[in-house]
Amino acid sequence: MAQNVYDDEQFFAAYGQLPRSIEGLDAAPEWPTLQAMLPPMDGLRVVDLGCGYGWFCRWSAAGGAASVLGLDVSDRMLARAAADTDDERITYRRADLDEVHLDADSFDVAYSSLTLHYLVDVDRLFAEIARSLAPGGRFVFSCEHPILTAPSAQGFVDGPNGPVWALDRYQMEGERVTNWLADGVVKQHRTLTTYFAALRRAGFDVTDLVEWRPTDDELAAHPDWAAELDRPMFLLVGSTRP
Amino acid sequence: MAQNVYDDEQFFAAYGQLPRSIEGLDAAPEWPTLQAMLPPMDGLRVVDLGCGYGWFCRWSAAGGAASVLGLDVSDRMLARAAADTDDERITYRRADLDEVHLDADSFDVAYSSLTLHYLVDVDRLFAEIARSLAPGGRFVFSCEHPILTAPSAQGFVDGPNGPVWALDRYQMEGERVTNWLADGVVKQHRTLTTYFAALRRAGFDVTDLVEWRPTDDELAAHPDWAAELDRPMFLLVGSTRP
Repeated sequence: MAQNVYDDEQFFAAYGQLPRSIEGLDAAPEWPTLQAMLPPMDGLRVVDLGCGYGWFCRWSAAGGAASVLGLDVSDRMLARAAADTDDERITYRRADLDEVHLDADSFDVAYSSLTLHYLVDVDRLFAEIARSLAPGGRFVFSCEHPILTAPSAQGFVDGPNGPVWALDRYQMEGERVTNWLADGVVKQHRTLTTYFAALRRAGFDVTDLVEWRPTDDELAAHPDWAAELDRPMFLLVGSTRP
Repeated sequence: MAQNVYDDEQFFAAYGQLPRSIEGLDAAPEWPTLQAMLPPMDGLRVVDLGCGYGWFCRWSAAGGAASVLGLDVSDRMLARAAADTDDERITYRRADLDEVHLDADSFDVAYSSLTLHYLVDVDRLFAEIARSLAPGGRFVFSCEHPILTAPSAQGFVDGPNGPVWALDRYQMEGERVTNWLADGVVKQHRTLTTYFAALRRAGFDVTDLVEWRPTDDELAAHPDWAAELDRPMFLLVGSTRP
């Protein structure tokens, strides 16, 4: 079972202050790249795995989606997501994605943003997603990049030419405890090898694989993002169920 | 044009002492994983891009390949490869892979081992390979992993829990000068994003993506390989031309 840190009071309060929590998709710099991996939503059945405040669900509905199911483990997130819409095409439901069941052949698009690195078992989830997608359906996700999740102590240390990302234990998968927004946040490190193999085992064709980096314009506007050039923070993946 | 370090006297002498130079494929720990990405060679037309001493070419011929073309930029390597076989199905030819031309629809398998990180332009080469493969043909390669090639100073530094790989400049592609076997060896750093996108642009379906790591048995036999758990050294990729 995945840790539900989003119902931790301190974490939830801090998470609510992030630009992407306040302003939604347009405040997430990786969103344009993910969006480019998605089909036009018009008439499609969409599931959002780890929907949070529901920004993507509302965006899908605004794009003409026929139905949108938003799943999240956090009651607090779901309550706020539900309060932010009265669109009848959008349904929110509580689910632990390490145990969720999805109906076969019931979606055209599965989407998951920055959620998979909390899950213990992506093999099971990817198989469930593949089964739930219609032929030709798309599965698009972002997660923390393995380079970000690997270290025993996430952060920079002094290197010969300035700060370097303290990479160790890349090949040793499993739990990592970080202090991001709250103390003792548990994430699951897995390699790119494992993400890719899990997708293939579930029958997906992997069509897009992007290690997000800021554009030169974004770097000019946010000089504090310079560290993003030293190591990728997010992995973005697009795949198709044949 | 790619640097031809293999014709540097010091480099060539040191390279000749590596286990994989002396004992061939079986001394390359990543070989079983690459081999599993290859089809049975019987009756196939094979090209080896960066064939070195010709170990893979001879292995392909021994597996029943109909013809094998070995390409390399190094005259010294090619001379030794030619001296090591009298199999008429094997042809060796000098080629700079940044400029090579391959005949259309002339191979069933393209293979490249630890060569691509010397090349300036994989986009051009991948398109050339795609054009040269028959439909259903396989392109299988290994290269130094982007985590290995990225740093401004490749190596480990002290971290909070022991040595850490000094990762920086991952997103800044281009030349890196290292002192591996000889001083001033020039390699080309590119991200996984770029390798994947270049394959897709050339029309390949990427079926396998493995960040090589030693098995537990290999670690027990080679305790000095422990650093391989901290960061992946090789990237192994299998792809199909539809």
